[in-house]
Amino acid sequence: MATANLQDTMNSVGQAAKAAAHSLSLAPAAQKVDALQAAAAAIRSRSEDIAAANTIDMAAGADKGLSKAMLDRLLLTSDRIEATAAGVASVAELDDPVGRELSVTDRPNGLRIRQVAVPLGVIGIIYESRPNVTADAAALCLKAGNAAILRGGSDSFNSSGIILECMQAGLAAAGLPVNALQRVPTVDREAVGMLLRMAEYVDVIVPRGGKGLIEHVQQEARVPVFSHLDGINHTFVDAAADLTMAESIVVNAKMRRTGICGAMETMLVHRDVAAEFLPRAVAALQAAGCEDIRGDEAARCLSTGLSPASAEDWDTEYLDSILSVRIVDDLDAAISHVNRHGSHHTEAIITGDAEAAARFQREVDAAIVMHNASTQFADGGEFGMGAEIGIATGRMHARGPVGAAQLTSYKYVVEGSGQTRP
Amino acid sequence: MATANLQDTMNSVGQAAKAAAHSLSLAPAAQKVDALQAAAAAIRSRSEDIAAANTIDMAAGADKGLSKAMLDRLLLTSDRIEATAAGVASVAELDDPVGRELSVTDRPNGLRIRQVAVPLGVIGIIYESRPNVTADAAALCLKAGNAAILRGGSDSFNSSGIILECMQAGLAAAGLPVNALQRVPTVDREAVGMLLRMAEYVDVIVPRGGKGLIEHVQQEARVPVFSHLDGINHTFVDAAADLTMAESIVVNAKMRRTGICGAMETMLVHRDVAAEFLPRAVAALQAAGCEDIRGDEAARCLSTGLSPASAEDWDTEYLDSILSVRIVDDLDAAISHVNRHGSHHTEAIITGDAEAAARFQREVDAAIVMHNASTQFADGGEFGMGAEIGIATGRMHARGPVGAAQLTSYKYVVEGSGQTRP
Repeated sequence: MATANLQDTMNSVGQAAKAAAHSLSLAPAAQKVDALQAAAAAIRSRSEDIAAANTIDMAAGADKGLSKAMLDRLLLTSDRIEATAAGVASVAELDDPVGRELSVTDRPNGLRIRQVAVPLGVIGIIYESRPNVTADAAALCLKAGNAAILRGGSDSFNSSGIILECMQAGLAAAGLPVNALQRVPTVDREAVGMLLRMAEYVDVIVPRGGKGLIEHVQQEARVPVFSHLDGINHTFVDAAADLTMAESIVVNAKMRRTGICGAMETMLVHRDVAAEFLPRAVAALQAAGCEDIRGDEAARCLSTGLSPASAEDWDTEYLDSILSVRIVDDLDAAISHVNRHGSHHTEAIITGDAEAAARFQREVDAAIVMHNASTQFADGGEFGMGAEIGIATGRMHARGPVGAAQLTSYKYVVEGSGQTRP
Repeated sequence: MATANLQDTMNSVGQAAKAAAHSLSLAPAAQKVDALQAAAAAIRSRSEDIAAANTIDMAAGADKGLSKAMLDRLLLTSDRIEATAAGVASVAELDDPVGRELSVTDRPNGLRIRQVAVPLGVIGIIYESRPNVTADAAALCLKAGNAAILRGGSDSFNSSGIILECMQAGLAAAGLPVNALQRVPTVDREAVGMLLRMAEYVDVIVPRGGKGLIEHVQQEARVPVFSHLDGINHTFVDAAADLTMAESIVVNAKMRRTGICGAMETMLVHRDVAAEFLPRAVAALQAAGCEDIRGDEAARCLSTGLSPASAEDWDTEYLDSILSVRIVDDLDAAISHVNRHGSHHTEAIITGDAEAAARFQREVDAAIVMHNASTQFADGGEFGMGAEIGIATGRMHARGPVGAAQLTSYKYVVEGSGQTRP
């Protein structure tokens, strides 16, 4: 598409989204529930169409030489389609985040000031290959009364298209404007740049994907962005740790699922327990399938089976069955390593020393700081939010899991009886 | 300064601010109180130095041909210096916003998830002529445990410099790093562009000033910005308004202080009461000193003394004793005018009809929506926040008055007892 035409198209999408966002912001909770339930039903009833579109995407992906992992992300089996529908239906069941009273202040002059949650507006979502994100992200935006403009990976264009039609069918069935959920109507990359600059129509951009995508978005956007960088997460096994607990936690934190952003990437071990803990931890991790454990010099003296870690390892998010291990002198060294190399996502300390735990949790700068628990709990569902659109690692607006409540803003509703300001 | 040298200087400022922010984020509440009280004392004890520096700025401003209004903003009388010190001391008395528990969730697996307020980090503040902003903004940032990099107007460079020295003296007296409060060390405009792009060191930019400044910041920044655009605020006098109340409110909303962003700029009057209300409102406004009341055709039919409003008037923030007036057919027309021409700042309805008030407050998209009160209450102090750095009109993070609590983020502190994720 010529640039000028594409800009016109994107402006139309933006205008339509803004108008729909206004309607959606006023929609009663029950109407949004109806829309989500109807959307889930539509996904179920059109599962064969979705599978057929996915077959086309998969064939194109194979021709294009996508990796096995990429193809697996793209694939929609009938189980995955059912899970997508179930996810949308479960978002319907969440508490409505709009209209919550966040605070009330009664002023001496008689003014009552209520802070009330309202939708954010129009949310632009940019994501990579998984086509089910189309449903997940759209459902959460809708629940919070927001319009969304979706831009999925070009590889899943056909699959995502049918899923979006199902979501729009839900909106239509509930009498809500279908333009509340739209997508960028082309795989043309230029359209992404336009979306990132449409400050007039788009209130916030949520990028979901790899580091490259997110850095590009942060660099190009003229619209606020929910930063979600990588998860270089640490677990620090302190001198006062229960080593049996520590062993089960580090195995879980690394190996339960290696590809999620809450997975542990580096284990720090206090020097005083390293000789005892490291060999058994290494054995347990290897038994759980950890293929490559990379240690610093001290670690490699204390345990066999470690390959050497390079300086780069401390700044790497493997998302794989690889772990780096470092021996640290004390709590200060652990905190300092984490604050230097962590990505402000999720950090954990294993210790029986409450004071050490409190210091770690206070001094480490991360969205989530855990004591005696696996970093894999970094998840909106596990936090009781029901669903999440991602884990934000920036400090503005929302930090940590971004669920429906985090996709709202607020307004102050002031009730007077004729007050004038002296 | 050559660009490369200036960039080095700005990077040093940024690095020092980041390091200081870390210390400040861990400072106990009492230490921050000590710093603020010592800073207030320093402003009082150096009031003659401040006045002398201000004399230099005023002379340069007069030579440069600054307007009378600009020179008045720049002027620091001894009363204003005392008020500046008192403002800093009053921020010391506020509740400490850091460490507040914002929510607690106990999960079925035994995890306790506490959401705890933490500082935002490093805040860049860009403002225009008033030198007292140096103290106000720095004090609020410090109270919330943030480091600040200040960039005031070049006209107040000398006055601001001494005030900053007083703030730093307060930090030093309390044993806190003086680099927690720094300024851009040059009036070179290029430095502002650098500040707006230092995403590595700066967490958020707060622009305080006219529309031009703020639009420039929003366009150039690669760092999150607390949007604070203009205040094109409306008061809608509904058919069911108590007209005596309405008269006193509109006079206050327009005339109490015309130069603040919470002042009413446009009055909307319901057709059914316009013939009765408009003449008396116009007379009362004129008696209070309103110099120019610009009406649409319908308004000019109903009252003498109005000049004609042009289409531009509906989109103008006068910040002066000028008012535009429009007659509207009904509540819908009022809401629609406000949503089209308002700036999402503060909007008010005067009515005895609770349902009309509820609809107006729900459907109008603004940070503050008032019923039967003057828009001039749009102020952090009047909201019980003690002090504010501005009124945010964007939807991300903070909306409405930005006080110390709004200058914080949060982290999730998770307490476990060995939990692993199934």
